[in-house]
Amino acid sequence: MLIVQKYGGTSVANADRIKAVAERVAKAAKEGHKVVVVVSAMAGETDKLIGLANQISTNPGEREMDLLLSSGERITSALTAMAVEALGYKAIAFTGRQMGIITDAVHTKARIEKITGERARKALDENYVIVVAGFQGITGTDDVTTLGRGGSDLSAVAIASALNADLCEIYTDVDGVYTTDPNIAPEARKLEKISYEEMLELASLGAKVLQTRSVEFAMKYEVPVVVRSSFNDNPGTLVTREDKDMEKVVVSGVAYDKNQSKITVKTVPDKPGIAARLFKAIADANIVVDMIVQNISIGGNATDISFTVPKTDSKKTLALTEKIAGELEAKGVDLREDIAKISVVGVGMRTHSGVASQMFDTLAKHGINIMMISTSEIKVSCIIELKYTELAVRVLHEAFGLSQ
Amino acid sequence: MLIVQKYGGTSVANADRIKAVAERVAKAAKEGHKVVVVVSAMAGETDKLIGLANQISTNPGEREMDLLLSSGERITSALTAMAVEALGYKAIAFTGRQMGIITDAVHTKARIEKITGERARKALDENYVIVVAGFQGITGTDDVTTLGRGGSDLSAVAIASALNADLCEIYTDVDGVYTTDPNIAPEARKLEKISYEEMLELASLGAKVLQTRSVEFAMKYEVPVVVRSSFNDNPGTLVTREDKDMEKVVVSGVAYDKNQSKITVKTVPDKPGIAARLFKAIADANIVVDMIVQNISIGGNATDISFTVPKTDSKKTLALTEKIAGELEAKGVDLREDIAKISVVGVGMRTHSGVASQMFDTLAKHGINIMMISTSEIKVSCIIELKYTELAVRVLHEAFGLSQ
Repeated sequence: MLIVQKYGGTSVANADRIKAVAERVAKAAKEGHKVVVVVSAMAGETDKLIGLANQISTNPGEREMDLLLSSGERITSALTAMAVEALGYKAIAFTGRQMGIITDAVHTKARIEKITGERARKALDENYVIVVAGFQGITGTDDVTTLGRGGSDLSAVAIASALNADLCEIYTDVDGVYTTDPNIAPEARKLEKISYEEMLELASLGAKVLQTRSVEFAMKYEVPVVVRSSFNDNPGTLVTREDKDMEKVVVSGVAYDKNQSKITVKTVPDKPGIAARLFKAIADANIVVDMIVQNISIGGNATDISFTVPKTDSKKTLALTEKIAGELEAKGVDLREDIAKISVVGVGMRTHSGVASQMFDTLAKHGINIMMISTSEIKVSCIIELKYTELAVRVLHEAFGLSQ
Repeated sequence: MLIVQKYGGTSVANADRIKAVAERVAKAAKEGHKVVVVVSAMAGETDKLIGLANQISTNPGEREMDLLLSSGERITSALTAMAVEALGYKAIAFTGRQMGIITDAVHTKARIEKITGERARKALDENYVIVVAGFQGITGTDDVTTLGRGGSDLSAVAIASALNADLCEIYTDVDGVYTTDPNIAPEARKLEKISYEEMLELASLGAKVLQTRSVEFAMKYEVPVVVRSSFNDNPGTLVTREDKDMEKVVVSGVAYDKNQSKITVKTVPDKPGIAARLFKAIADANIVVDMIVQNISIGGNATDISFTVPKTDSKKTLALTEKIAGELEAKGVDLREDIAKISVVGVGMRTHSGVASQMFDTLAKHGINIMMISTSEIKVSCIIELKYTELAVRVLHEAFGLSQ
């Protein structure tokens, strides 16, 4: 088998952890598998570099930020290759460029355009273990890019797809995907398997086990992904295509996201093209809007528009929105950062009704007010006050019988 | 003017130091100069990375070592570019590759083959301050190389040459080139200027102000180099072509080097080709031999060969030498690490005699035994016991009247 193994920051946090990773890689190689390893930066390293940049500039350039941040993964890839070689296996470290990861030029959140992987195929033929620096790629014009937070997951899945790997293992500091965050609800259960669709909703809803785009990518190219711990030998959770078993479960997980902000444009003239103009400007700035709610017209000719964006983009978005609100003669713009998104997810919702009403009912029963609602085929999300996050997770986990 | 400014590790040791560097760069840009900055890794960073590698492997691969170590300079180049930009100047960070620094494939001590610099010329035309990650290049087959300890000096001089710069300023934590190490002899004087030849001898003799190969390069391409401090505005020392004034001074400096080891092959059969065989093997391993002394035959048909190599290579050299000594039926091999090399340097020696004998006489007068002697047109070097280093420096500095 060709296996891609990705190790996150806590799994490569120091020399001893890197040696433990090498042992695991060597075990797979010894069993006759070909192995491509993708590594993140050592835990804390990326934050340290960001801290330095912030000490130096209030507005560091994104191209330089990428050059800066890509260094962390290069360091780990070199060290991990040394550790594998020290165990008697041939190993070679590859940068994003050497792996042939070509991206667009949207610095700090580039998208992978293709992976050439020629050199990797040759090295695999020569029985090398390849250790790739995750999180990074290169533009057609020779500049280093990074793939956004959690981008090493995407590196791993994309490499698995490009090399036609049999399996992509994502090693992290948790045992797999849980019905919810065990830190909040200790009765949370580990799932044996989960569909790409559910995982995608969970990831995008803030369950930080897998980066959203890596799940999209895995789903699109049907890459079988296993999420498991690098600290033990537990089997983990398989992320795979939806099957009949999964449909029987109405709700498979409760997720929360504290990293969103809510922006409201007040009393906008209710004319066609208003929303388009606002959200085009935001999209042009490469900001991802999550939920959008437009209220019913107030008195017939004006409306409120609310939407959520990642907290990291909230100031940039506020500035943009205020500019456009002025042009549109809106009454004003509000930013609220003390919010959280709570969601219930399950492919079973497609065939079972009543999930949304049960969710609203449960929240109401505990005095939790709902500010925004958004639904998809397989999830229901509510924006609530930040302080109710943990309570909401626990009561929903209980209400949907997820502990059993 | 086009100025290349190189800043060493202590000059970029933290965010505040990097901001101070940016101020100096901005000053030059404000005066209308075009500026290319070359930066080292933050002080301590390279040693930290080497420490990690040594924790992980007793024999880390050199290709991976280069990938590892090149990260430090990339980090500083990105941060420094951000700092310059924060002062309102356009700045762009370049890796060795983006600067077009092509090297051979001798990892950990690669030689620069050429610098294409196309992208740099374009950026200078567009009035960017360029900040290049020092110490690194790229092979024709896409692998990262490093240029050996102090390699950022070489990066700076080579870039200055490739871009036809008017001046190459090497910023460090000392005010310039001294007649000897002021830590040992407080009466040491700063030199206003020094010839390439003298600087070369001083650098290769362990005066760590400039990396040897950078001086060779500067001499070959006549790049005017100024060594000065990034901590003040003192004028520094100009390294330039030899002129009439310089010849009047017999000795311009006393240098010492504690980083050599002495290896002796005992009682080798005195036949042609013996030395060639030994030193070819050592050269093939890319180890630089400094001094070689072959004693007069003992009893007519056997001889001792002694030579010095950098301490970092001493174990590798010892193993190689023992292997060959066995094949040559020598009596054994001795390694001595408790030695130092003391040298007096000056272009004036070309026209003045008696320097060597005055040196031997001075050392003898203070009870310092000489183990090996080597001379060139402009220097005399002696290997002595390590413990006499400081004493030797002080008495020679005094004897040659360098404090005046």
